[in-house]
Amino acid sequence: MPSMMTQPLTISSLVRHAGQYHGQTQIVSVETDGSTTRTNWSEVEHNALRLASALGRLGCETSDRCATIAWNNRRHLEIYFGVAGGGYVCHTINPRLFPEQLIYIMNHAGDKVLFLDSTFVPAVAALRPQLKTIEHYVLMGGRDEEAAAQIEGLLFYDELLAAEPGDFEWPELDEMLPSSLCYTSGTTGNPKGVQYLHRTTVLHTLGANQPDGLALSAKDIMLPVVPMFHANAWGIPYITAAVGSSLVLPGPNLDGHSLVRLIDEEKVTMSAGVPTIWMGLLQALEETGSKAESLTRSMVGGSALPSSMIPEFRDKYGVELIHGWGMTETSPLGSLNQLLAKHHSLGPEEQAKLREGQGRPPFGVELRLVDEDGNRLAEDGQTQGNLQIRGHWIVDTYFGAETTALTGDGWFDTGDVATIDADGYMIIRDRSKDIIKSGGEWISTVELEDIAISHPDVANAAAIAARHRKWDERPVIIAVPQAGKEPDKQSILQHFEGRIAKWQIPDDVIFVSELPIGGTGKILKHKLRTEYGDVLWDAG
Amino acid sequence: MPSMMTQPLTISSLVRHAGQYHGQTQIVSVETDGSTTRTNWSEVEHNALRLASALGRLGCETSDRCATIAWNNRRHLEIYFGVAGGGYVCHTINPRLFPEQLIYIMNHAGDKVLFLDSTFVPAVAALRPQLKTIEHYVLMGGRDEEAAAQIEGLLFYDELLAAEPGDFEWPELDEMLPSSLCYTSGTTGNPKGVQYLHRTTVLHTLGANQPDGLALSAKDIMLPVVPMFHANAWGIPYITAAVGSSLVLPGPNLDGHSLVRLIDEEKVTMSAGVPTIWMGLLQALEETGSKAESLTRSMVGGSALPSSMIPEFRDKYGVELIHGWGMTETSPLGSLNQLLAKHHSLGPEEQAKLREGQGRPPFGVELRLVDEDGNRLAEDGQTQGNLQIRGHWIVDTYFGAETTALTGDGWFDTGDVATIDADGYMIIRDRSKDIIKSGGEWISTVELEDIAISHPDVANAAAIAARHRKWDERPVIIAVPQAGKEPDKQSILQHFEGRIAKWQIPDDVIFVSELPIGGTGKILKHKLRTEYGDVLWDAG
Repeated sequence: MPSMMTQPLTISSLVRHAGQYHGQTQIVSVETDGSTTRTNWSEVEHNALRLASALGRLGCETSDRCATIAWNNRRHLEIYFGVAGGGYVCHTINPRLFPEQLIYIMNHAGDKVLFLDSTFVPAVAALRPQLKTIEHYVLMGGRDEEAAAQIEGLLFYDELLAAEPGDFEWPELDEMLPSSLCYTSGTTGNPKGVQYLHRTTVLHTLGANQPDGLALSAKDIMLPVVPMFHANAWGIPYITAAVGSSLVLPGPNLDGHSLVRLIDEEKVTMSAGVPTIWMGLLQALEETGSKAESLTRSMVGGSALPSSMIPEFRDKYGVELIHGWGMTETSPLGSLNQLLAKHHSLGPEEQAKLREGQGRPPFGVELRLVDEDGNRLAEDGQTQGNLQIRGHWIVDTYFGAETTALTGDGWFDTGDVATIDADGYMIIRDRSKDIIKSGGEWISTVELEDIAISHPDVANAAAIAARHRKWDERPVIIAVPQAGKEPDKQSILQHFEGRIAKWQIPDDVIFVSELPIGGTGKILKHKLRTEYGDVLWDAG
Repeated sequence: MPSMMTQPLTISSLVRHAGQYHGQTQIVSVETDGSTTRTNWSEVEHNALRLASALGRLGCETSDRCATIAWNNRRHLEIYFGVAGGGYVCHTINPRLFPEQLIYIMNHAGDKVLFLDSTFVPAVAALRPQLKTIEHYVLMGGRDEEAAAQIEGLLFYDELLAAEPGDFEWPELDEMLPSSLCYTSGTTGNPKGVQYLHRTTVLHTLGANQPDGLALSAKDIMLPVVPMFHANAWGIPYITAAVGSSLVLPGPNLDGHSLVRLIDEEKVTMSAGVPTIWMGLLQALEETGSKAESLTRSMVGGSALPSSMIPEFRDKYGVELIHGWGMTETSPLGSLNQLLAKHHSLGPEEQAKLREGQGRPPFGVELRLVDEDGNRLAEDGQTQGNLQIRGHWIVDTYFGAETTALTGDGWFDTGDVATIDADGYMIIRDRSKDIIKSGGEWISTVELEDIAISHPDVANAAAIAARHRKWDERPVIIAVPQAGKEPDKQSILQHFEGRIAKWQIPDDVIFVSELPIGGTGKILKHKLRTEYGDVLWDAG
């Protein structure tokens, strides 16, 4: 006889809680056509239930993948809960990927249903002949004859839901069932899928929202700028359901002026996004004269935080920037930078300095540093090592892979090089895998170099990350011409077209007579980064 | 192949996190002799590991019960983690119970080891001949010849730990293993044990500490006045380990002046305890002139919150009182009173009024109201019904019981009568079980009435709860004398001695010629409470 009740940790229980105890709490949604809809958690649960029921009627079976290509809006939120709550897998797809990547991902995932925002109708219509597994295309809206003409058999979300009798109840699911799927662009080769479970998602929800974590509450009005197709929007849809926050879903327009307007009109108290977004917001605040008075704090992650940003937000707008770190493989929260009791007595500049790092892991994950042979390294704030992570919401095996992604002793290697100090504060120092992170997405230097070297006039080439004001990093090629050849920059850049996604094509080519080579024959990338890392800074 | 890592949710992982990431964070402990010790989470984990190792050496096997009779101090904290982390069950015992109850509890639990503070040496020495299962008595301190003379074979905690080599590592435990045990004095009959599991404890830790919950963080210095022998000290030992708060453990002296001194000297930011404690604190603040400047908020639970207390703490000391509700059977957090976004615009008095209720359930538990036949009632803030609860940290079957404590459809009936409004705010209105709650412990009216009626001069009697300034409620007997008899108050009260614990003996006896009887033949207790509920108010 069990001494305590046991219930599965499921995603449906999150939205059920929100529907029951925060039913009237508002969800504001900027739709793809620019209009604004107001709904609430009760309606979101209600529609999620209808959707779960409709998917069964469409022939979905447990753990079937249902994909989305969509902005942050109310229907996307309902799909998050309806798909997972029904026992299916919500596969969120990044629309910025190259068509070949999109095709690869949808075929690899074996998606059965694809939900799409109207923005993406032409793109999906073009891809359709190569999508092998999708049985149902569902436009996230009401009937639209123009869209229907482009995608034969197109279904309409609002019609699907309206046809349901509304008596569906959440099935009791095993907490180890998969709930959702997100592909990471990966450092080499094809994208890889991380398939989250109900249990890991609920534990991430509770673990990431402790007071030193995202710290969302029923008093908050949250604006997630981080896309819902990107690493579960940092867990915000689940967390806000668990605690009953109000949500403001910004739709497709994430420029500074649109965000300032939303913050002021909807009295947003907290937001979350990559540094690029906050640069745009700072500029728009300056231009509009808004003081963003309701906004108290904002999560920043996805790439390194420029050091001027913390004091600027704090001093001019009274907004606390909270720096975090994570990956698609980590659900995503790996660490978050909040102060300890002993830091109360530090001055504001010292506190800001401390907050530039990536912070401490919450209970639920552990970090360690190892050398190339896997030996554990000192956590003294000085020693750099490969950053590895394990915990309740960390990947084990990529979707469809035959071998685990973990080390022999069960840790996931992040590809970052970091230091950790005695209090657990981690700072990313470098990358063990030589990759470029542009606008939150990875670009493989190995692929760029392969393409550059395949140009007939190039003898050798290295791809490096150059700092960029908007995209954080952009690729630049450092190339050695073939003897006797004088290739021009344009011919090299044209050589990339059609071989890689447009956004991955390097921004510049710099010709040199030779590349710096180390003792083991490797190109010394850090030397190149030091010399050429700023070539795009004034251009951006 | 699992797509995500899975690890068990264990209590050892909580203290391991604290040891690793908050190792230097201070734990202040007021010892039983009045001295103050300063330790930290690293030392607490270190000692907990040594204790777990020592218990194995003493012959403990998985799930064996190790009991404590102790104050809130550092060794008690180490025992919490060392016993559970080693795979044993930490059984915390309330020293205020009547000797017969203590004997019953220890024999029923089958405790193998008993840890005791020096305060309790004489009491335990007296009980020992009747304790059937305890193999090892361990004094929580260093060698003490005076104590050793009273309890033959007494072991000493500090010596036990010092003898360990210190190379022990936490065993990997199944999350469904029992971790801890706490008896509730119950409404009728013998005390009943609630046996918590590793999983339920960790889920309570994460679920109860959301920002609208206890909201402890690494910035906090927490003073738990609620005893560690009472419902896991509301989960504070586990929560502070998970988030790395500093702790101030107050030892045996919980009078207002001792608490004011601790708050001011240790810069306590948050506390937790029953209303009685805060009444004492208010008086001591008044007398000392302290403004308790570091204190920002305090959890209040265990009995109803007097309405004057919220504004008094807020206006005079800037301290926010957070009202919560729970039971030993609910780990204990069942609900907590924090405001919603829509309440921001209310005035301070309206907010204070709202905060007098018991609040909303956090994600992880659900509440409902039912009538006597188990039919669900409206949650409209008006309809009163029996309050039932279910969730991730709620009892199923009492320790050693053969049948579940739940309703046929899996809910636990709390014995409270409540209303719930549309936002989920719950207010306790009455009790479905006719019981008295004195100083946080239950007293059965049925037992009191049985004893009163067994007096030769009493024809009929009812026991009711009278409001009391210090103990919140105290029992009073309303008695009808036998025809022709004129018993005096003292003879009735003497009749209780030896038949029940001293603290359960009624404070007063009121003689009446007849008791009010309802249509179904039951005594109308609410009429008696209305008439006599205030007879002790001016006396207290």
